[in-house]
Amino acid sequence: MKALEQAVGVDIGGTNIKLALVDSNGSILNKAVMETGNAWERSSFYLKLYNKIAEILKPESSWQHIIGVGIGVPGLVDSARGHVFYAPNLRWDGIDLKRELADHIPTSIRIGNDANVATLGEAWMGAGVGEENIVMITLGTGVGSGVLINGQLYTGQGVGTEIGHMVIDSKGPKCVCGSRGCFETLVSAKAIATRATEIIGEQISKKELKKVFASAKKGDANATRVVNETATYLGIGIANIINIFNPSKLIIGGGISMAGNVLIEPAVEVAKEYSLKAALERVTVVRAQLGNDAGVIGAGGLFLRGESNDKN
Amino acid sequence: MKALEQAVGVDIGGTNIKLALVDSNGSILNKAVMETGNAWERSSFYLKLYNKIAEILKPESSWQHIIGVGIGVPGLVDSARGHVFYAPNLRWDGIDLKRELADHIPTSIRIGNDANVATLGEAWMGAGVGEENIVMITLGTGVGSGVLINGQLYTGQGVGTEIGHMVIDSKGPKCVCGSRGCFETLVSAKAIATRATEIIGEQISKKELKKVFASAKKGDANATRVVNETATYLGIGIANIINIFNPSKLIIGGGISMAGNVLIEPAVEVAKEYSLKAALERVTVVRAQLGNDAGVIGAGGLFLRGESNDKN
Repeated sequence: MKALEQAVGVDIGGTNIKLALVDSNGSILNKAVMETGNAWERSSFYLKLYNKIAEILKPESSWQHIIGVGIGVPGLVDSARGHVFYAPNLRWDGIDLKRELADHIPTSIRIGNDANVATLGEAWMGAGVGEENIVMITLGTGVGSGVLINGQLYTGQGVGTEIGHMVIDSKGPKCVCGSRGCFETLVSAKAIATRATEIIGEQISKKELKKVFASAKKGDANATRVVNETATYLGIGIANIINIFNPSKLIIGGGISMAGNVLIEPAVEVAKEYSLKAALERVTVVRAQLGNDAGVIGAGGLFLRGESNDKN
Repeated sequence: MKALEQAVGVDIGGTNIKLALVDSNGSILNKAVMETGNAWERSSFYLKLYNKIAEILKPESSWQHIIGVGIGVPGLVDSARGHVFYAPNLRWDGIDLKRELADHIPTSIRIGNDANVATLGEAWMGAGVGEENIVMITLGTGVGSGVLINGQLYTGQGVGTEIGHMVIDSKGPKCVCGSRGCFETLVSAKAIATRATEIIGEQISKKELKKVFASAKKGDANATRVVNETATYLGIGIANIINIFNPSKLIIGGGISMAGNVLIEPAVEVAKEYSLKAALERVTVVRAQLGNDAGVIGAGGLFLRGESNDKN
């Protein structure tokens, strides 16, 4: 029996980096977490990353057993060139990541935007299995997105799909991107925390949003207002995606999606009002299934998943 | 020398229907126009269409010389099934157009949304030649769109891309689709005429918009306000398309695009402010080149253009 191919998936976040040894069935054989730390001190960062990857290989340090390392980066990347335009949480700005890593990591490297890579993970092993045209949004500190078209990740001219920076309220709040009323400024964890702070009248941090969602579930009036305002904008964004992409599946992931039905159900009701009937009838809106593993599985999938399994 | 293949392209509009005999080089060999008339009286409409197509064949009525008839329909269609969900200008609502036409037209039929078909025309013979990832918007009475991904028309689950029904101002004007602040409600000819009527203080029809654009060119203050407000929304919509699709080319077509630089230049300036730099650097925004011929060429292209040249 031929052994399954293996790759390492790395999901870089602002605080932690998740790593997993993944096989071509999409199974996780080993995993680890490390602190992101001072990623901007790149030489020492690359060395720590090398050591951590070596640790999860089976047997340890058996680099020859893997076909590559796939990496999800929280920022704007050119996946084809392996270039990071901008990853503010890492303080990376114009880094040839693939080329730099090649001096430290003794195997092939592929990189992708973190939300793109998570979408690939869900498409391969999670909520999107068997679907050809998928849009996923990840609701976290920011709003990320990934699009699969004809079963393949679509990244346009390399920069990919930044649905979080789709303006849905042209007179809305200023966005970090320089625009105004972007989807991200209305439904990210940061946006919801700002909304909660205003409505509830006391400082609510992103980490305290769980409590707000729990209060809304119990019927608290202010918490319900926070959730309903958020659901309205989330629903409009979902409707836009349905009208623009006419996908078969729209997947909602990221920390905020853990709020569950208290947020997602009213958002879907709004989306039904705002979307074209024929497109609405052809889509299913679902929550992501892989949770925190979507990123590492998808990053491994950059090497292991079906048709994209050519080495480079 | 092998003769070039031929097909007929039909572009159905609310007032007129354009027809052309097209060859596999994308050349128009013959063309005609007929009134749309009472398209809802379908049997007599199909008969008139049959007669008009027969007239432009070379020699006349030589149906055996063409490989099919491609048709652009102004409405929501399922191109794979040949079904029209909704074409309000024709008063068609749930029509199996391909099946019904098969009883009248003695050759293969393919249908597509009118803006999708025009996009295919521009991609094949016009402003999009040689590009893989194209988005086109058509600014007319409504706002249509078409998207080419990896060189092929993308229609999702068959309904296709309705970028005109992307909400960009969630508190904006009511849309015919039931939503609010759709791109179409802000930049269609109808929307601009409403804006002009309000700002100028007298009734301005869609047909009089040419005069408004001409006055703006001459520096008239009110006309300039109409154009600038329109350009702001057009620019935001363009920025959204750039951020969402990261295309190599964004083509602006339709009657309103004839306004030219007085509208397009300020819109592109707004788009530059509102779009992500890395995506902006990879796109060219251009006007459509084929004018009124885009539809018939693209409709013929449903049979004649490259890879999609399988009969069915």
